[in-house]
Amino acid sequence: MNLPAVLSLLLVVSTVQAFQYTELTQFIDSHQEEYVETLRDWVAIESDSSNVMRRKDLHRMMDVVAQKLRLMGGTVELVDIGEQELPDGQTLLLLPKVVTAQFGTDVNKHTVCVYGHVDVQPAKLEDGWATDPYNLTDINGHLYGRGASDNKAPVLAWIHAVGAYQALNMELPVNVKFVIEGMEETGSNGLDAMILAQRDTFFSDVDYIIISDCGWLSRRPALTYGTRGNCYFFAEVEGPKQDLHSGVYGGTVIEPMTDLIGILDTLISPNGKILIPGIREAVAPLSDEEWKMYQDIQFDVEDYKNKIGVSQLMYSNKVDLLAHRWRYPTVTIHGIEGAFSDPGTKTVIPAKVTAKFSIRQVPDMDPAMVEKQVTDYLHSVFAKRKSPNKLKVTMVIGAKPWLADTQHPLYEAGKIAIKRVFDMDADLIREGGTIPIARTFQDVLGKSIIMMPIGGFDDGMHSQNEKMSRYNYIEGTKLFISYLNEVSQIQKISV
Amino acid sequence: MNLPAVLSLLLVVSTVQAFQYTELTQFIDSHQEEYVETLRDWVAIESDSSNVMRRKDLHRMMDVVAQKLRLMGGTVELVDIGEQELPDGQTLLLLPKVVTAQFGTDVNKHTVCVYGHVDVQPAKLEDGWATDPYNLTDINGHLYGRGASDNKAPVLAWIHAVGAYQALNMELPVNVKFVIEGMEETGSNGLDAMILAQRDTFFSDVDYIIISDCGWLSRRPALTYGTRGNCYFFAEVEGPKQDLHSGVYGGTVIEPMTDLIGILDTLISPNGKILIPGIREAVAPLSDEEWKMYQDIQFDVEDYKNKIGVSQLMYSNKVDLLAHRWRYPTVTIHGIEGAFSDPGTKTVIPAKVTAKFSIRQVPDMDPAMVEKQVTDYLHSVFAKRKSPNKLKVTMVIGAKPWLADTQHPLYEAGKIAIKRVFDMDADLIREGGTIPIARTFQDVLGKSIIMMPIGGFDDGMHSQNEKMSRYNYIEGTKLFISYLNEVSQIQKISV
Repeated sequence: MNLPAVLSLLLVVSTVQAFQYTELTQFIDSHQEEYVETLRDWVAIESDSSNVMRRKDLHRMMDVVAQKLRLMGGTVELVDIGEQELPDGQTLLLLPKVVTAQFGTDVNKHTVCVYGHVDVQPAKLEDGWATDPYNLTDINGHLYGRGASDNKAPVLAWIHAVGAYQALNMELPVNVKFVIEGMEETGSNGLDAMILAQRDTFFSDVDYIIISDCGWLSRRPALTYGTRGNCYFFAEVEGPKQDLHSGVYGGTVIEPMTDLIGILDTLISPNGKILIPGIREAVAPLSDEEWKMYQDIQFDVEDYKNKIGVSQLMYSNKVDLLAHRWRYPTVTIHGIEGAFSDPGTKTVIPAKVTAKFSIRQVPDMDPAMVEKQVTDYLHSVFAKRKSPNKLKVTMVIGAKPWLADTQHPLYEAGKIAIKRVFDMDADLIREGGTIPIARTFQDVLGKSIIMMPIGGFDDGMHSQNEKMSRYNYIEGTKLFISYLNEVSQIQKISV
Repeated sequence: MNLPAVLSLLLVVSTVQAFQYTELTQFIDSHQEEYVETLRDWVAIESDSSNVMRRKDLHRMMDVVAQKLRLMGGTVELVDIGEQELPDGQTLLLLPKVVTAQFGTDVNKHTVCVYGHVDVQPAKLEDGWATDPYNLTDINGHLYGRGASDNKAPVLAWIHAVGAYQALNMELPVNVKFVIEGMEETGSNGLDAMILAQRDTFFSDVDYIIISDCGWLSRRPALTYGTRGNCYFFAEVEGPKQDLHSGVYGGTVIEPMTDLIGILDTLISPNGKILIPGIREAVAPLSDEEWKMYQDIQFDVEDYKNKIGVSQLMYSNKVDLLAHRWRYPTVTIHGIEGAFSDPGTKTVIPAKVTAKFSIRQVPDMDPAMVEKQVTDYLHSVFAKRKSPNKLKVTMVIGAKPWLADTQHPLYEAGKIAIKRVFDMDADLIREGGTIPIARTFQDVLGKSIIMMPIGGFDDGMHSQNEKMSRYNYIEGTKLFISYLNEVSQIQKISV
């Protein structure tokens, strides 16, 4: 691929028929209610992959996806990816099968593979949702529900994009494959092995990977060229053999909770500086070019503050904020398991407490190195306390960051498709969150990847009141229709 | 009461009939299974006063107590003590009524008032109970169940003690009153006001208050002459208007959880030193006499370590341990509400987190002063972080410590009763936990109080697998029978 990207776009692959954009988008508009109903059905399935009690729902969710793709005439498989070992080290739980599907086998066309997931983060009404998180609720054109934006609507938008071509008896401009999983929210357990196993079969003819598991930065449509990785840790401090009455025993026992708070407080300074030796040193320096690019991105700091609802952010200027969202690591303490967490008062000395915290990964950090740095550091600060309690540090997720070349024809095609559908220039952005599978597709398959989000900047993924706008859902479907056509225009690499 | 205690015991109040100890204890032994069944019925009622969802069970529990006392011919009232304002500041919830009862009105006899409670701490099987906490389970003579020892069995033992005299048509040696409440575990809401309101009516003829809401220190029976108080705090840090995705927002937001961990870590040092200015200075110094008394108490440090299941305690010698259990303050961090506390992983930045911690109170600390010291201190350490988040510190319980005179005839009578039933000398001990109502009885009514525990040293009150031994339950009932007789021997104060 030495030709300049712009030139390559002019070389049209011969077999592709004329692109009937208007007919396709009219079809999408006229089927909007049907698409919303399907999303409602999908959101109603509580496919929370982190809750083992919901595993049946998760299996059902995968069956629903497979059935939908089968009814469209795809070649569909439910791929067994084995079992999951629960933290007790003994129980094995069946992982949700991965759905693969194929539409079109024309060797003269490009083959894209759309990756998505249909599992969701936990959600309970009492967490502060205004509506039942599993009953899709339309308020002023915003469709509220857990998983609506992350990632059920984008997956459906891709399916509907393919479906529209079929319904209108138009030939797909490229072959389209799907890989839909059900464990993304807990680290895509089993998927890496499945991709490796099918590298020379299902994935052998795939040219490009498309992922739509993220969101825009503003009201301007975006293409995403990087994500942070994530190292998720459990730090467990264990003391007495069972919980104790704090009146009866307080003062004589060295309390695990005090120890845990003590070591957690050494992770990060009040002004956001990571205190674990070696972490900051591994981060690639910010280049002048990057700095300039960040300057040009549409991002309103005041809007961002208002949306979050805070009076002050960690940094006050746009470039620092974007850089610390996208290309610097950070530590978040998510919570503590085993301590008293209910409303009310309980006079307990918890016997075993487990902190959950994570460190977002950026180039050139290495999860294996981070695991060692964090483990060594926490054990060293714990040792200084001279506590008889036992500390166990475990890295339960170790996902690498991902970074793409924004000059690649996949991105040029994306810019054209966005311009056509939204009549706006795309922002080139990165993602603070983690889509570990991007890195796997890159490392294992050696394929080029594009991230093409359709989620809104204020969709509240992972938090209360997650939503997908009708606008993003429907215009997003049109974007995917348009993008399939643009990808077909990319010159075959074999030329 | 200037006569020496020993002398006073020799002056027998004339109306009391001869004490038929053997008949009474045989009656108790032959009714053991019936007593266990009644305890089973009581434990089956999930009267968790800290859980507003269980309020109906709590009301039912009070009705069951009232009905039992009524069937014994007592003059019983269910006293309305008003409503409870929930933390939202809006909802009012009916408090469980207080049960009062009276057996005997002979003005020539002493009148004792037995205080007890029938509400319980929270308990769930998944907290680590070996058996269903609300299904009393007999394993090797130990009766496992939430509330078995704290405080349902002791309340029943008092009721059965009175019932035995009645069943055998023996005159009660003293008039016996009962005050049984249902909010002890959350701070005895409403009870102080009720005691004040009935000071000149129900309580006017009460000579002595007896409380059996604690446990022995070893296998040797004990009399308790002091308890610690408790100041329970909520420290809430509020930031963003809702939970955020830690990937998407991490690095740009000043996280409430980091702030909270930071201020919690300033409460207490790894070696147990309270760091809040003014707290340690307020503690009464340990006298030589106290030190000698502690030296003589039966307390095996190795046993204590084994029971708790730790290799090392905060102090290694008996006197330091007992002193820090009984007469020094301590800080316990119980847990954090609003953060992620479930099993598994969740990549959330919690928007609002509330730490629960408590400081045990001892003479000469003053809860109002402690409230100010803690609030001022936390706000000052929080201010140093220069965080835009909001800190709110609230003291939700402020219970004073209590201390009795061990030379009082009530205690002399207790020693004799213990010697008779157990053929052992009583240990004079204090309690690390809090029984705030003791202080109220002392301050509001000006009555003398004795604490006469029958709970075992290893009953696990407030923790998993709470139990009451058949031995303690049944021999404890005999102790109460015997004690009623001994109290009748105390010379009337009016003499």
